[in-house]
Amino acid sequence: MDVDLNKIPKHLLKEEDPIFAFNKAIIDATHHLCVAYKPNTAFYEAYGIKGWKALEKTIKYLNKNHPEIFTIADAKRGDIGNTSTMYATAFFEDLAFDSVTVAPYMGKDSVEPFLSFEDKHTIMLALTSNQGAFDFQTILVDGKELYKQVLETSKSWKNSKNLMYVVGATKAEYFADIRSIIPDSFLLVPGVGAQGGNLQDVCKYGMTDAVGLLINSSRGIIYASNKEDFAQTAALKAEELQREMAQILSDQS
Amino acid sequence: MDVDLNKIPKHLLKEEDPIFAFNKAIIDATHHLCVAYKPNTAFYEAYGIKGWKALEKTIKYLNKNHPEIFTIADAKRGDIGNTSTMYATAFFEDLAFDSVTVAPYMGKDSVEPFLSFEDKHTIMLALTSNQGAFDFQTILVDGKELYKQVLETSKSWKNSKNLMYVVGATKAEYFADIRSIIPDSFLLVPGVGAQGGNLQDVCKYGMTDAVGLLINSSRGIIYASNKEDFAQTAALKAEELQREMAQILSDQS
Repeated sequence: MDVDLNKIPKHLLKEEDPIFAFNKAIIDATHHLCVAYKPNTAFYEAYGIKGWKALEKTIKYLNKNHPEIFTIADAKRGDIGNTSTMYATAFFEDLAFDSVTVAPYMGKDSVEPFLSFEDKHTIMLALTSNQGAFDFQTILVDGKELYKQVLETSKSWKNSKNLMYVVGATKAEYFADIRSIIPDSFLLVPGVGAQGGNLQDVCKYGMTDAVGLLINSSRGIIYASNKEDFAQTAALKAEELQREMAQILSDQS
Repeated sequence: MDVDLNKIPKHLLKEEDPIFAFNKAIIDATHHLCVAYKPNTAFYEAYGIKGWKALEKTIKYLNKNHPEIFTIADAKRGDIGNTSTMYATAFFEDLAFDSVTVAPYMGKDSVEPFLSFEDKHTIMLALTSNQGAFDFQTILVDGKELYKQVLETSKSWKNSKNLMYVVGATKAEYFADIRSIIPDSFLLVPGVGAQGGNLQDVCKYGMTDAVGLLINSSRGIIYASNKEDFAQTAALKAEELQREMAQILSDQS
């Protein structure tokens, strides 16, 4: 749910809160096809107070009407201990998200404050879907790529049972290696759709007995149409992806 | 300006906006002693809309009354390209900060959107002041610590003239090595005060002909007293640190 006012249908701009109006329409049209929603906080912060209010309304709407749906604040936060606690409070308590994405660069004490929240999940960047992933994440650290070191090290952190990881779908050839380090962890997989990741490959190399994959498609679904029928078109796109997934799951069993 | 409602003087809690009331009093009492103010966004996000409003009022107050003072949004953001552009818009345009802190893990395309803003500064995490810095930042990458790789690589990014770096004061023994890679870059140095960093050492190893250091003290100043006289006490603490700095500068010349 990366809402950009330049991309949403023009008729929504007349609404009092165009961002929430867009999200509500998308949720209403797609909730039966989705196990999770992931607003990226950048898109809300870019609109200041107005954006933050729309984010708050969106998460409240989700928690009230679809409490069974997993919610992810895609915020990529991380700071020294006492500060990370404030971020965790913001997303887990004030906004009541089920999970939040975090960055690993500042290490253990920047992530453990998130992990200490019971019944919440912390999703740490491991190998991201963008080109810049090759700048640092894949360089060799003691003969091993940095992202592997991130996976290894974080396994020993306190409450690491609450830890999930971001692994981009555009890096499908890396999934086998990743599964050798974290065989059971749940992975959030962005990059299917607009960014070009391949669902078949991701499932082939990344799936566990309990599936263990949360596949994300953002722009490919929400911006499939910018006309009056945008929500129905988004639902069709979501259904297409959901069917592809169902097919893969039935082929496996 | 890391405002925690549990730490500010009790009498401010009666104010309509206790966070802004605290910041305003601190700014009014210390602006003649400071070259920069750095609110950490986590502390504002933790209070939701109320917090975001207080942040907006604080930056507006600073830009209106003290336009010559450098402002830093300590946000530690970073995401794929189109998303980083939204963050840059949030902090550079909507809130009109002079600079923002960013995390390097996602690489070049996650940082360049910030760098593309003319007359703004992007302050990237290199070697942070916390214990967790030793988890990944100092591990060897091709025989060289990761933070050095981050410094080396980022020098070639587009508009890297707008790039500054965060180096913690608690890591003073690393400054000589850092200066051999980035001899002229401006460094934001947190960790003096509550976190135990030593100002003398930081200056000895980190200072350039143009100084090149922006020393930050947060909790040691703003929470020096939680009584009615908190702002005056903060000013005394700020003056103490400012005098120490002036002494070091005069010893050098």
